[in-house]
Amino acid sequence: MREAVVLLSGGLDSSTLLHELLADGYDTVALSVFYGQRHAWELKAADAIARAADVPQVKVDLGAALRPVFADSNSSQVGGQTSVPEGHYAEDNMAITVVPNRNLLLLAVAGAFAASRGAAVIAYAAHAGDHAQYPDCRPEFISSCAKTLHLATGVVLYAPFQALTKAEIVQRGNSLRVPFGLTWSCYTEGPIHCGRCGTCVERAEAFFLAQVPDPTEYIDSDYWKTVSRAPLA
Amino acid sequence: MREAVVLLSGGLDSSTLLHELLADGYDTVALSVFYGQRHAWELKAADAIARAADVPQVKVDLGAALRPVFADSNSSQVGGQTSVPEGHYAEDNMAITVVPNRNLLLLAVAGAFAASRGAAVIAYAAHAGDHAQYPDCRPEFISSCAKTLHLATGVVLYAPFQALTKAEIVQRGNSLRVPFGLTWSCYTEGPIHCGRCGTCVERAEAFFLAQVPDPTEYIDSDYWKTVSRAPLA
Repeated sequence: MREAVVLLSGGLDSSTLLHELLADGYDTVALSVFYGQRHAWELKAADAIARAADVPQVKVDLGAALRPVFADSNSSQVGGQTSVPEGHYAEDNMAITVVPNRNLLLLAVAGAFAASRGAAVIAYAAHAGDHAQYPDCRPEFISSCAKTLHLATGVVLYAPFQALTKAEIVQRGNSLRVPFGLTWSCYTEGPIHCGRCGTCVERAEAFFLAQVPDPTEYIDSDYWKTVSRAPLA
Repeated sequence: MREAVVLLSGGLDSSTLLHELLADGYDTVALSVFYGQRHAWELKAADAIARAADVPQVKVDLGAALRPVFADSNSSQVGGQTSVPEGHYAEDNMAITVVPNRNLLLLAVAGAFAASRGAAVIAYAAHAGDHAQYPDCRPEFISSCAKTLHLATGVVLYAPFQALTKAEIVQRGNSLRVPFGLTWSCYTEGPIHCGRCGTCVERAEAFFLAQVPDPTEYIDSDYWKTVSRAPLA
């Protein structure tokens, strides 16, 4: 069977993708990258997800190396100078959470890893809800990056969630029995989901819309309803 | 003036590009990346070139971090298991010198760095002589990567040497008074150019074709003539 490298952040999107690859019969290896993110707690989640799914996992620690690269960034997730904004994931104030060129960095590392071991596919879980804030999650980026990666390495980029909402991913993950309780979405340091940052709000809203029980413990479990764009009644 | 980030390896192509950017009036910052390359001596050359040109230089050390990424590669330049091949740069046996996805990695780091500091341009010195061996130096890769980087970060990729031969770069560098004696091309560990690897042969041949005196000390200074494709008589 062909080998797929999945970029496993520890979030529920990439964890669902991992399980989908396994269901599709790929030989799957998880690649988890620390790039200096404030929300490094997600990597503990990635470890737990890989272990629970019994897939090999390779970890890459770029944190110290990338410090001079991000030194002048004002991102709340790598700069360290800006605090994590609260509110809905699609609000304008979430732009500060963008990590400059994050996904091309991760995909370039995944490309080097896949080409080095002869893997056929890189799987990447960007979804439609990411498009508002993250230019490197949009379909035009994904297709351009896929072409670039293929020209450089021959590896195929597989991004099956790019048109799905987070709620649809929760539904897929639920049917694949993804252990959602092990996944991590929050942009703060942890160890408990804050419930107020954009990714916590998006997560809680997605479980609500998917009509799937949310196993997550939030510090503030009701805040999301006050900023939600979902029909709550 | 707009700021340009130049990927400065310490070779003569990127050193010439650095001087061309300065001549064109860019605010120029050099970015030098250790990715675990056997020929790490080039980074000492990069330091010397940046210092001599009096441009700021930022160094990124990905060596340890990328070891698990390249672990299964058989590249002579990062694997450590394969020796550096001798002969002409365009020979089939040079394929072993390819570092999987090297340039996308470097350009992704440069994109993150440029976007973090608001630089407008990334400058990258791939040239026509690289095309035979390195898929990630070819014009179709460069234009796809330029689009990808621009979509992710808004930064422009500038690769003015992609249609030039190495000899033409030597001529340009010569007219810009690039201190060629400080640059490093050899694929071995150094500290003296071996004269027998593909990049040494290409370098010696380029100076000959450009009719520019070659300041390089080679361990074997005549080998290149035995494998050269240039009209020597």
